[in-house]
Amino acid sequence: MTAGTPDIDTRTRLLDTALKLFSEHGMEGASLQMIADHLGVTKAAVYYHFKTKDEIAEAVAAPAIQQMIQIVHEASLKRSRGAQRDHALAGFVDLIVRHRMLVGLFNSDPWFKRIIDRAWQTSPRGDLRTRMKTLFAGPDPSIADAITVHIVLAGLGTAGGAPEFADLDDDTLRQHLLDVGRRLLGRPRRSRQPLQKRRRKAASPR
Amino acid sequence: MTAGTPDIDTRTRLLDTALKLFSEHGMEGASLQMIADHLGVTKAAVYYHFKTKDEIAEAVAAPAIQQMIQIVHEASLKRSRGAQRDHALAGFVDLIVRHRMLVGLFNSDPWFKRIIDRAWQTSPRGDLRTRMKTLFAGPDPSIADAITVHIVLAGLGTAGGAPEFADLDDDTLRQHLLDVGRRLLGRPRRSRQPLQKRRRKAASPR
Repeated sequence: MTAGTPDIDTRTRLLDTALKLFSEHGMEGASLQMIADHLGVTKAAVYYHFKTKDEIAEAVAAPAIQQMIQIVHEASLKRSRGAQRDHALAGFVDLIVRHRMLVGLFNSDPWFKRIIDRAWQTSPRGDLRTRMKTLFAGPDPSIADAITVHIVLAGLGTAGGAPEFADLDDDTLRQHLLDVGRRLLGRPRRSRQPLQKRRRKAASPR
Repeated sequence: MTAGTPDIDTRTRLLDTALKLFSEHGMEGASLQMIADHLGVTKAAVYYHFKTKDEIAEAVAAPAIQQMIQIVHEASLKRSRGAQRDHALAGFVDLIVRHRMLVGLFNSDPWFKRIIDRAWQTSPRGDLRTRMKTLFAGPDPSIADAITVHIVLAGLGTAGGAPEFADLDDDTLRQHLLDVGRRLLGRPRRSRQPLQKRRRKAASPR
């Protein structure tokens, strides 16, 4: 099939519409019928592509999940910890900016969050969240480093999907998230020595 | 009434049980009947105290909301911006640690989040979230400062309610969140000059 065939068009429009309706009404509130009505097609036409809202949500999230897998894979091939963090941060921020509505839905909808979490946990090379955190904080982080990375990753995601920053254009938001992320994480490429120092200092017995 | 009378006991036990059940099943999934069953009382006994789940959720959240109002009020009385930020950060972290289960519920349940948001917006001296952000970033922050504060506040809340840090005792979690928060915000008490510098540098035209 080539781009422009009715099936591809319908599928793409269906996913765009579903994301919009999921965002407005939550996955709980948006029905297959509602999606069909907004597309001006029958419910059967929606069923032709997807049987459940879960399947639609998985397809809506698939490009972002694929991008995340790619980022983590590429970052893990870098030699130094600094270069790994740099690549992972830049990729993560780019993903957040490209998929703002998706990120907003992830932040606000427990149902959608469960689907993404499941996709992350079952990704081909192991749990994406764990791999991402390892890229940022190393394999055996101190509590302080684990908390820092948790705050930065969760915070970047929240800020990227936040209504108060929705009117920033992509380049502006990307640059600001990247700057703030680098500053909060201690500028990856230069931080190896300070990070080690900080770790020894911060690691407290539990 | 004195502590220990049946009514106070029932009300306290009811709120404890409701928070636990809301956390386990979400506000959507937990019913008044379920709460009554877990307390070993009739549904009528629950109705005697609260008519709706919203009322229960408001009462569950009331002590934390009250603490937040107090923190913001106390912080706003401090003279310097640094002292204001310091007080607000310490108070916010203490609140997160004291009310971890509540914070976890806030992070995961859109229904509960709506109730808290409403309580914040209608607090006596104006929207609590805006007042909190102003304490941290000033009345007219640059985009970079607004994003930093957003990331730190959202991140602290997420980390405080996160299952992966649930086994840290209160003092350890409090100290780590405070250390990380101070580092990420630039150590309030010492940051007046660097903050001003950073602002001029970071403020970019939109």
